[in-house]
Amino acid sequence: MTTVRYIQEKDADDRVKEIYRDISESRGGAEINNIWKVLANDPDLLESTWKRLKKVMAPGSLDPLVKEMIYIAVSVVNGCEYCVHSHSAAAKKKGMTDAMRSELFSVIAMASQTNALAEAYQVEVDDKFKV
Amino acid sequence: MTTVRYIQEKDADDRVKEIYRDISESRGGAEINNIWKVLANDPDLLESTWKRLKKVMAPGSLDPLVKEMIYIAVSVVNGCEYCVHSHSAAAKKKGMTDAMRSELFSVIAMASQTNALAEAYQVEVDDKFKV
Amino acid sequence: MTTVRYIQEKDADDRVKEIYRDISESRGGAEINNIWKVLANDPDLLESTWKRLKKVMAPGSLDPLVKEMIYIAVSVVNGCEYCVHSHSAAAKKKGMTDAMRSELFSVIAMASQTNALAEAYQVEVDDKFKV
Amino acid sequence: MTTVRYIQEKDADDRVKEIYRDISESRGGAEINNIWKVLANDPDLLESTWKRLKKVMAPGSLDPLVKEMIYIAVSVVNGCEYCVHSHSAAAKKKGMTDAMRSELFSVIAMASQTNALAEAYQVEVDDKFKV
Amino acid sequence: MTTVRYIQEKDADDRVKEIYRDISESRGGAEINNIWKVLANDPDLLESTWKRLKKVMAPGSLDPLVKEMIYIAVSVVNGCEYCVHSHSAAAKKKGMTDAMRSELFSVIAMASQTNALAEAYQVEVDDKFKV
Amino acid sequence: MTTVRYIQEKDADDRVKEIYRDISESRGGAEINNIWKVLANDPDLLESTWKRLKKVMAPGSLDPLVKEMIYIAVSVVNGCEYCVHSHSAAAKKKGMTDAMRSELFSVIAMASQTNALAEAYQVEVDDKFKV
Repeated sequence: MTTVRYIQEKDADDRVKEIYRDISESRGGAEINNIWKVLANDPDLLESTWKRLKKVMAPGSLDPLVKEMIYIAVSVVNGCEYCVHSHSAAAKKKGMTDAMRSELFSVIAMASQTNALAEAYQVEVDDKFKV
Repeated sequence: MTTVRYIQEKDADDRVKEIYRDISESRGGAEINNIWKVLANDPDLLESTWKRLKKVMAPGSLDPLVKEMIYIAVSVVNGCEYCVHSHSAAAKKKGMTDAMRSELFSVIAMASQTNALAEAYQVEVDDKFKV
Repeated sequence: MTTVRYIQEKDADDRVKEIYRDISESRGGAEINNIWKVLANDPDLLESTWKRLKKVMAPGSLDPLVKEMIYIAVSVVNGCEYCVHSHSAAAKKKGMTDAMRSELFSVIAMASQTNALAEAYQVEVDDKFKV
Repeated sequence: MTTVRYIQEKDADDRVKEIYRDISESRGGAEINNIWKVLANDPDLLESTWKRLKKVMAPGSLDPLVKEMIYIAVSVVNGCEYCVHSHSAAAKKKGMTDAMRSELFSVIAMASQTNALAEAYQVEVDDKFKV
Repeated sequence: MTTVRYIQEKDADDRVKEIYRDISESRGGAEINNIWKVLANDPDLLESTWKRLKKVMAPGSLDPLVKEMIYIAVSVVNGCEYCVHSHSAAAKKKGMTDAMRSELFSVIAMASQTNALAEAYQVEVDDKFKV
Repeated sequence: MTTVRYIQEKDADDRVKEIYRDISESRGGAEINNIWKVLANDPDLLESTWKRLKKVMAPGSLDPLVKEMIYIAVSVVNGCEYCVHSHSAAAKKKGMTDAMRSELFSVIAMASQTNALAEAYQVEVDDKFKV
């Protein structure tokens, strides 16, 4: 939209600069993506989003590449072009091969199809799943 | 819906019986889930869906548990209660721990949030992602 | 929700009664569905919704059964359980056979799948479609 | 995305070429659309998608134009710009007039509206629809 | 799509011209937006949409700015780029400050996140909400 | 799902108890809703969600009731039954009258309709909105 500014690093105030620094360092010195430059219009939102994202996407019981692929799946279904682009790039950096992407997209397509069928036929949840 | 029959194994014709057998064997002898009993009203749909699903969910560049978690992510965003239930059960069988589920759901929540923000602010895709 | 009343015909004021009568007559004397009894809490909404729906679903360049099937398709994708039920019943009354329903649902599943793939791969619109 | 290649007919391997030929023939010699050129990166996906689509969209209990309109309805609700474009073109070729398109879109708008209202008011499914 | 005409004021027939005039007057003489120029291909749709919209967005129990913000929220979740743009402009005209926009978008992000979590965990509705 | 526990206040560990206390106090001593009892399975998620929600929903440039209505709008479009219920109850507590609810739902219905039309007709964003 017209009025949304992309806040560049040189124009940011100290709080935002500090967050930009943390984002960049966490990503091996990468430049700041547009999404952060936009969220910087609302420093509280920028900070809470970044802090939570950093924690959520860190290695844990699931490895970071798996998390990126889950992120892509959600973004595809939500129709978020920006997020599909940025997280596909991130997944690639973390080692997603073309073969892995093919499988990821095939699962997304498969699930979209059976989701629609379950909804169309109004399939009842099996009792065993409810116990 | 009223008129959708759940076709039981004993009532199925030979073609459907054969597919039921393959589904059950692929899942260690498990009983047939409702979704298949409903799709059996349209044997072509049953067969094409099952054959593709069997192939897509098999081990490949991604392991089956990762695929189940991607399946869950898609189903959550599509709001498919049936699929969230059935694939959560499947993921658990394949080794999804509570800690893994927590991380899966945290990634889904995180992505849903930034998807909405990217859409709300109409963030432009960074040039570097388009090259 | 707790506080939403289902306004029965006997409890309705004259304006609502008149609309109920029109709905019932247009449907061969059928009783009023829950959706109308709820919309009757806001008579303006009830009237504008019913009047437009009556016009939109009438025979025209598309026949009423085709329109019901399109309605079902939209309702499935939007995940509206109520609407899937009510319009499946309506479609059946207007002649939708089990074979037609199978084909309707197969198209919905097919489209859901390629929609997801086009989004996942971010396929560019062919120039010929833009001319 | 950057790395997705559009596989041209001259660069395709024999398996993909064969599928391209079948697609083109089924469409009166039309050139191959971008979606297929992208799916060709994953020949299994290309083949299973095309084979199923060809079957699903063929004349049956519903005529092909009706199926195209249902496809458009799903694509509109899923927000798939690519699919709205390509299937609108396909529907036009199969005889969709401007008047038919108007009615199609009016039904989609009507359904989107009542879907939202049923969800907002949490309208309960009528008992008669559940029997 | 190729074949959709944007009907300019000078090319409109009398019925459409009259509606255009009403739209423009209601908005302090503003020029007609693209959405109306497209809907004008179907004068019935144009008229019913505009008349209802004019009524729904008028001052009432909620003030017009609040209504615009609700409109934006729906449009963001539906992924309607056009509507996000046009209603953000409308909200700004009606007094939405940058601070208000920040809060609006933060609520949208928050809700998107908890919507996903409630769906992922399949949280049951509390009894107290059902009474 | 089977395995998701609802963690009661008496069974919660100290960290969760403290958050429950804060939730209850912020809501005038209300009992804890199911969503929090489920999120408590992942105390980090519980804490980050609650802290952000408390901040986002607090009085600011928008008043809390307006925020609740925006929350409802998002939840309706996402089809989150749980959230529609819980935030409708919250909005009512904060003063949402039946008339306000009617207007809220009419705006949601209106927006859903024009969102679909803009997508169906692929309306281009007016240049003036892009400047």
